[in-house]
Amino acid sequence: MVDDAKPRLSRRGLFGLTGAAVVGAGVGFGVDRVLTPEASSSGAAAVYPFFGEHQAGIVTPAQDRLHFASFDVSDISRDELKELLEDWSYAANRMTAGKSAGEFGPADGPYDSPPDDTGEALDLPPAGLTITFGFGPSLFDDRFGLSSKRPAALIDLPHFPGDALVDALVGGDLCIQACSDDPQIAVHAIRNLSRIAFGRAKLRWSQLGFGRTSSTTRAQVTPRNLFGFKDGTANMRAEDTALVNKEVWAGGSDWMAGGSYLVSRKIRMTIETWDRTSLREQERVIGRNKGEGAPLSGGTEFTEPDFSITGRGDAPLIDEESHVRLAHPTTNAGATMLRRGYNFVDGNDDLGRLNAGLFFICFQSDPREQFVPIQLSLSRNDAMNEYVRHVGSGIFAVPPGATESRPIGAGLFD
Amino acid sequence: MVDDAKPRLSRRGLFGLTGAAVVGAGVGFGVDRVLTPEASSSGAAAVYPFFGEHQAGIVTPAQDRLHFASFDVSDISRDELKELLEDWSYAANRMTAGKSAGEFGPADGPYDSPPDDTGEALDLPPAGLTITFGFGPSLFDDRFGLSSKRPAALIDLPHFPGDALVDALVGGDLCIQACSDDPQIAVHAIRNLSRIAFGRAKLRWSQLGFGRTSSTTRAQVTPRNLFGFKDGTANMRAEDTALVNKEVWAGGSDWMAGGSYLVSRKIRMTIETWDRTSLREQERVIGRNKGEGAPLSGGTEFTEPDFSITGRGDAPLIDEESHVRLAHPTTNAGATMLRRGYNFVDGNDDLGRLNAGLFFICFQSDPREQFVPIQLSLSRNDAMNEYVRHVGSGIFAVPPGATESRPIGAGLFD
Repeated sequence: MVDDAKPRLSRRGLFGLTGAAVVGAGVGFGVDRVLTPEASSSGAAAVYPFFGEHQAGIVTPAQDRLHFASFDVSDISRDELKELLEDWSYAANRMTAGKSAGEFGPADGPYDSPPDDTGEALDLPPAGLTITFGFGPSLFDDRFGLSSKRPAALIDLPHFPGDALVDALVGGDLCIQACSDDPQIAVHAIRNLSRIAFGRAKLRWSQLGFGRTSSTTRAQVTPRNLFGFKDGTANMRAEDTALVNKEVWAGGSDWMAGGSYLVSRKIRMTIETWDRTSLREQERVIGRNKGEGAPLSGGTEFTEPDFSITGRGDAPLIDEESHVRLAHPTTNAGATMLRRGYNFVDGNDDLGRLNAGLFFICFQSDPREQFVPIQLSLSRNDAMNEYVRHVGSGIFAVPPGATESRPIGAGLFD
Repeated sequence: MVDDAKPRLSRRGLFGLTGAAVVGAGVGFGVDRVLTPEASSSGAAAVYPFFGEHQAGIVTPAQDRLHFASFDVSDISRDELKELLEDWSYAANRMTAGKSAGEFGPADGPYDSPPDDTGEALDLPPAGLTITFGFGPSLFDDRFGLSSKRPAALIDLPHFPGDALVDALVGGDLCIQACSDDPQIAVHAIRNLSRIAFGRAKLRWSQLGFGRTSSTTRAQVTPRNLFGFKDGTANMRAEDTALVNKEVWAGGSDWMAGGSYLVSRKIRMTIETWDRTSLREQERVIGRNKGEGAPLSGGTEFTEPDFSITGRGDAPLIDEESHVRLAHPTTNAGATMLRRGYNFVDGNDDLGRLNAGLFFICFQSDPREQFVPIQLSLSRNDAMNEYVRHVGSGIFAVPPGATESRPIGAGLFD
């Protein structure tokens, strides 16, 4: 009944690669050129091209839904790893264009083989799907001859005070971030990429996010996290070109130039405790008011916080331990990063508490100068720590974008 | 710091109830009459009234997202249970109208108390939110003096062949189904109702669903489940008034008249196995083609299947073990029910397989005549059983709708 243990796609993908490279220059890695779409952003029909200088899904307007997956590479060769990244690039380019994951299927036959695509996205528009690939530190051990390629910025994250990490939710050799305005589309992407990896890499952990917690362009309304507060008001935006070039994209001239570094943190919120806390305490912890998101120093949502203003008893209006103060660039020697997180709820625990929180994602040019010092400051002093617990963590080198002739991560193998 | 262990809402709710009943007839249970909205269905602004003959969320056009929760009632009195249902009704009527869960908050003060509402739905429209309450068989034991009220149709579900139920995912004294086109709205509803229940009932299990798998009105496009097939083509629709009156709404003249019976089943799909199965086998199992959803006996999606047509070797075109045949009313002495399920993905297991499937929900006038015989037939013979595993289960009596003077379940206490 199960008549084809390994999806046909990977074999055909490989054929496309090897064959095409022989028969004609410029045919690239078997990707049909007509699939390369123009960028479009008309609601559900929004399409972001997979090919480009940078990967999509970073400064792309933050979509509403997330499926994130971390993979461990199986006992395969360097060439097989390269082939996997080629197959993933082929399928990602198709799916972000609104096509099925492979040439055959999900419903066209041949009938005696499994379809190339699982089918649940049939008839649906891509809804702004982006698929973003990353490489964890463990990929650069000696299994694949990549140790000399490990970027200095791809550090092993230090232990932060208060970390309560669960091994099954940490790390991974590879990651894929799939974002879309339709969750079925994001799930379909991860499912099909996971399927393509069968026998070559397997899911280590994965996370669905149902609501974005950041804006990445000025046109987007600031969303709310599960503390009920606006989140990401002070986030950098795609329009801040100079800032993005400096703080998001990796510089240099090696294989990571034009890439970025992704840090993910699964942050469980003890929302039942939070919900029994006074509004005054909630606003003190955040440093902004709950209704509008204005800093407690006054003004409106987008007014810059003034940390020097004091009130009764000369106490600062924005508490010394407030999140907005401790996360602010002025408190961190100018350090900042592009945030792109999502709200999550994963059922409930045995005590009847919702297993809920923030799946934090950020992008930066060098985590040693950005995420790490900011998180060290937050983990030591942030009043919010009473209401959160970091249970998952990941750091990934996100290579520059693929092109029609260079799959994702081609620079690893040059 | 935690200055109010029990939300103020319940106390004020109770005050409203007791006080109002004394000071003026018709003030009902403290619900502000101006909140009762007109039905509207314009996209994100869609509003379905909480009050009515039947509860909303049954024949209401199936919304895109689900948060379902089952609760165990704590060691409280009969009066306290009654009060909980009143408080829930008060908050549900507010939230479905796009208001906060309670009078104070989430952001208006008083500042030294916790807000009545957690805030993450602030600024968001209700997006068609419905909140549907149900009572499990265990509510009718002798704790609350309700044993004489237990409806005969609220049976303990039998064991079905192949059941792989996990105790933590089964049963519950109370259930709440929250559906909305915005997941943040559905999550907000369950979170706030769970909070209101603090000390009186606690979450037993809960489930997010990201994609509906049924249409309940003719205007809705048939969605796809995670087998990649259209699901719910043959579902009854709200427009089938005579059928709905007979098959969905409980008859009689007792407290359940105008109510319904909800059966939920958490059905894990072994999608990795399914995805390695040939298209021919997938279509044989379902009994429809994958592309259009037409029955294998011919025609288009909405053509009635003809189970008598045979093909090569006199084998029926629609297999004897196919899901469409075994679930069809003609195979089940006419039995049918209103399906209203959702796709789910809950991360992955240790083997790297997505923990994914269908959270099946159905409504019916009598599960003894509908869900039970149909599921007995399916569980014995359905070819699909090779690819699914039932891990969670619930059955709940869904009382008729609340009115301005009668909270949900008032009939339990008459």
